[in-house]
Amino acid sequence: MKYLIVVILLAMAPLAALAQTNVLSPEADATARRLMAEALDSDLAWDIVESLTTEVGPRLAGSEAEARARDWGRALGERLGFDRVSIDEFELPYWERGDMSITMTAPYRQALYGTALGGSAASPQSEELEAEIAYFRTVDDLVAVEDSSLIGRIAFVDGDAIVPTQNGEGYGPANQRRRIGWQHAERAGAAALVVRSVGSDSHRFPHTGMMTPQGSEWADIPVIAVSNPDADHLRRLHAAGSSIRMDIHSSAGWQGESDSGNVVLDLVGRERPDEIILIGGHLDSWDLGTGAVDDGAGIAITTAAAALIAQLPQRPRRTIRVVMFGAEEVGLIGAQDYANTHAAELANHQLASESDFGAGNIWQLVSNVSEAGNPAIDAIGKIIAPLGIIRGGNDVPGGGPDISPMAARGVPTVNLRQNGTDYFDLHHTPDDTLDKIDPDQLAQNVAAWVVLTYLAAELDVQFRE
Amino acid sequence: MKYLIVVILLAMAPLAALAQTNVLSPEADATARRLMAEALDSDLAWDIVESLTTEVGPRLAGSEAEARARDWGRALGERLGFDRVSIDEFELPYWERGDMSITMTAPYRQALYGTALGGSAASPQSEELEAEIAYFRTVDDLVAVEDSSLIGRIAFVDGDAIVPTQNGEGYGPANQRRRIGWQHAERAGAAALVVRSVGSDSHRFPHTGMMTPQGSEWADIPVIAVSNPDADHLRRLHAAGSSIRMDIHSSAGWQGESDSGNVVLDLVGRERPDEIILIGGHLDSWDLGTGAVDDGAGIAITTAAAALIAQLPQRPRRTIRVVMFGAEEVGLIGAQDYANTHAAELANHQLASESDFGAGNIWQLVSNVSEAGNPAIDAIGKIIAPLGIIRGGNDVPGGGPDISPMAARGVPTVNLRQNGTDYFDLHHTPDDTLDKIDPDQLAQNVAAWVVLTYLAAELDVQFRE
Repeated sequence: MKYLIVVILLAMAPLAALAQTNVLSPEADATARRLMAEALDSDLAWDIVESLTTEVGPRLAGSEAEARARDWGRALGERLGFDRVSIDEFELPYWERGDMSITMTAPYRQALYGTALGGSAASPQSEELEAEIAYFRTVDDLVAVEDSSLIGRIAFVDGDAIVPTQNGEGYGPANQRRRIGWQHAERAGAAALVVRSVGSDSHRFPHTGMMTPQGSEWADIPVIAVSNPDADHLRRLHAAGSSIRMDIHSSAGWQGESDSGNVVLDLVGRERPDEIILIGGHLDSWDLGTGAVDDGAGIAITTAAAALIAQLPQRPRRTIRVVMFGAEEVGLIGAQDYANTHAAELANHQLASESDFGAGNIWQLVSNVSEAGNPAIDAIGKIIAPLGIIRGGNDVPGGGPDISPMAARGVPTVNLRQNGTDYFDLHHTPDDTLDKIDPDQLAQNVAAWVVLTYLAAELDVQFRE
Repeated sequence: MKYLIVVILLAMAPLAALAQTNVLSPEADATARRLMAEALDSDLAWDIVESLTTEVGPRLAGSEAEARARDWGRALGERLGFDRVSIDEFELPYWERGDMSITMTAPYRQALYGTALGGSAASPQSEELEAEIAYFRTVDDLVAVEDSSLIGRIAFVDGDAIVPTQNGEGYGPANQRRRIGWQHAERAGAAALVVRSVGSDSHRFPHTGMMTPQGSEWADIPVIAVSNPDADHLRRLHAAGSSIRMDIHSSAGWQGESDSGNVVLDLVGRERPDEIILIGGHLDSWDLGTGAVDDGAGIAITTAAAALIAQLPQRPRRTIRVVMFGAEEVGLIGAQDYANTHAAELANHQLASESDFGAGNIWQLVSNVSEAGNPAIDAIGKIIAPLGIIRGGNDVPGGGPDISPMAARGVPTVNLRQNGTDYFDLHHTPDDTLDKIDPDQLAQNVAAWVVLTYLAAELDVQFRE
């Protein structure tokens, strides 16, 4: 019996080696490792994100600045040697922040640090918006409020700071107050809604972000997020029994239709040009910071990875497509447009993944590909393991926000998970600026992405079921 | 010879013990150690700084809020059992920040995060202040500029972030651009001066602070500090050869005379009521944050230390005086008033010290007292050494900003040096809020201060020459 097991094991070893060989030729393996080393030594991603944040600056979806970003993306793609550079344009409703102030007027006067949430209405032009607040410890308390019970009041939802975690699990629960709070404040007749920012930091920065429309309806009242320290302050005053009043001015609102677009950069495959490996990030950013970690980093990481592959003597087997999605922050509008515009091509999308969780080190590779394709992802995992990246499961759907519409239509996905423990300190704040990116961590990202992208395009493996 | 040395050493040991006994009675030693233990276990300082920052909030020198802070200080002193509670009122010129915005208008439009410096003038009412900047790498470059060479321009002094150090040595050099930059910008005819904030952080907060008048003259132009990340951004654009323009609106300015005052809380000495051990902090704060680390912490630490001593069965030998100085930030006006109003008493001030460098752990005890008094400071140093505090030299003048006018008139000083490595991250920013204070570090401060204050008041030692 023991003898038999040994024979089987001996027989399996060459089989395993053969399987490995089938997935990964020595040439592909060597090229991937060389690209990884080059990426670790390259400043290209840094140069890209520095250029985007400095030369273009903040780039709100639908703004003139986002249009400049598309021109920048097109010029970058041409300079880096992509074979096809195009822009898919689309229209979208345009929301602008305008000017605002939020001041506590009782128990004493103190400026608060707040900002309008995306989709917020302006304060009334003809009268002052100054009122006592109704304090809600959690968004659930506001959801439970009776109709018309907040007339003449400003609703304040306290809640808690995001619990910081590696994968950002704290975001969803905390985000409910930002997403749907307004629907209940408005139902109850409140003059405005103020919420604790959805952030994990303790700095005096408000975090903006989009609300969720009710059907196609947006808020008719101003909806403002204040910083965590300001919310702490209001909580303490409320606990001490103070009657708190606020004065709100905001000129936020919808400004009609505007233009956005996705920038599409292709390296055309040498053997199967119709089969697409899609990577990318989103080009738009919120307007408060310069969109460095959200998502200049993702644009830089994926573009740099593809640009390194563009320097190889020959194109990989399949087409590598970098998409710089427009209008992500305001509701995945560029992602929806991509899935619609390229609907006929989606069946040829072999794999898709977005980098959109900051600029921290990648620590895990997860995927959602066919059984046949899984050994290739495992092989990629082995090559990038020395970067400090663990191979996670093949049962993890995802790929990033802008990938979700195509993933819903059957495109396989992979996810290079970044450490986002600090991500929600900066997310959607004025503090999302270039200095927050660590060049070494950025290069680690490019090193992982270049291996993934090159091998996904080069290997003779079907990632689709 | 060896025998003689041994005899001398044996003879010296009891002498040293006797000297020690002379400085510090067993009762005083035991009381000091008991107070230290109580302080480490007490929440009093936290409660005081929470109350000040929450119930009073920001308290700009000369404002209605600073007047409320004096009322708060008086009520606190009465509640904590001080024997005498009084307020020395004085007048001062009152400067207000007003509203402001600073926007980069070329090479593209981007809001900058800036704030007026103390003493800044408003922007012109009748015309727009929009102009190209003249870039100066350092304040020295601006100082060297020719008269009338900046007409129609906005001067921008880049400089560098403060180098973070334990004792804050980086502040003085960096502060020159804030202090005197305006004098040269104005001499050269600039329409405004913008400077990189004097701070060590990389957050999108401007640091305010007072400029230095030229004689009795203040700036006639707006003077604005922008955050470090904003200055980095401008530096990169300048390096890329961009022509940079800015638009500045500010309603800052002097608003006539107003009132301020020092709150004086005394524990009257049981044997030598005329001899004073003076401790304290400053009650005013800048208006952007809530003045937690600057200097709510100092008020809390010193008041809590004295309040613990007030609980003893009998008062210490000398009077302990806690002074909550007014109008420190705007030019040590409360400190000058104290030295003038109490000029006749100053000869009886045995020792003075202020806590005004944040809320970080104390790591060193330095002094500037008589030879006769030095052994007592050494004895205090030995008691507080287990708190992680090193005894430094007796050749270190100081005592804190509000002590300087009385130190200049011969009052001996001591300094419990805090670790200020992070202090200039928060200093004079909107981010100076309660959450930045670590309760354990605050308690460590009180423990050191209570030992110093009690023994300085109790020991029969002359600190004056």
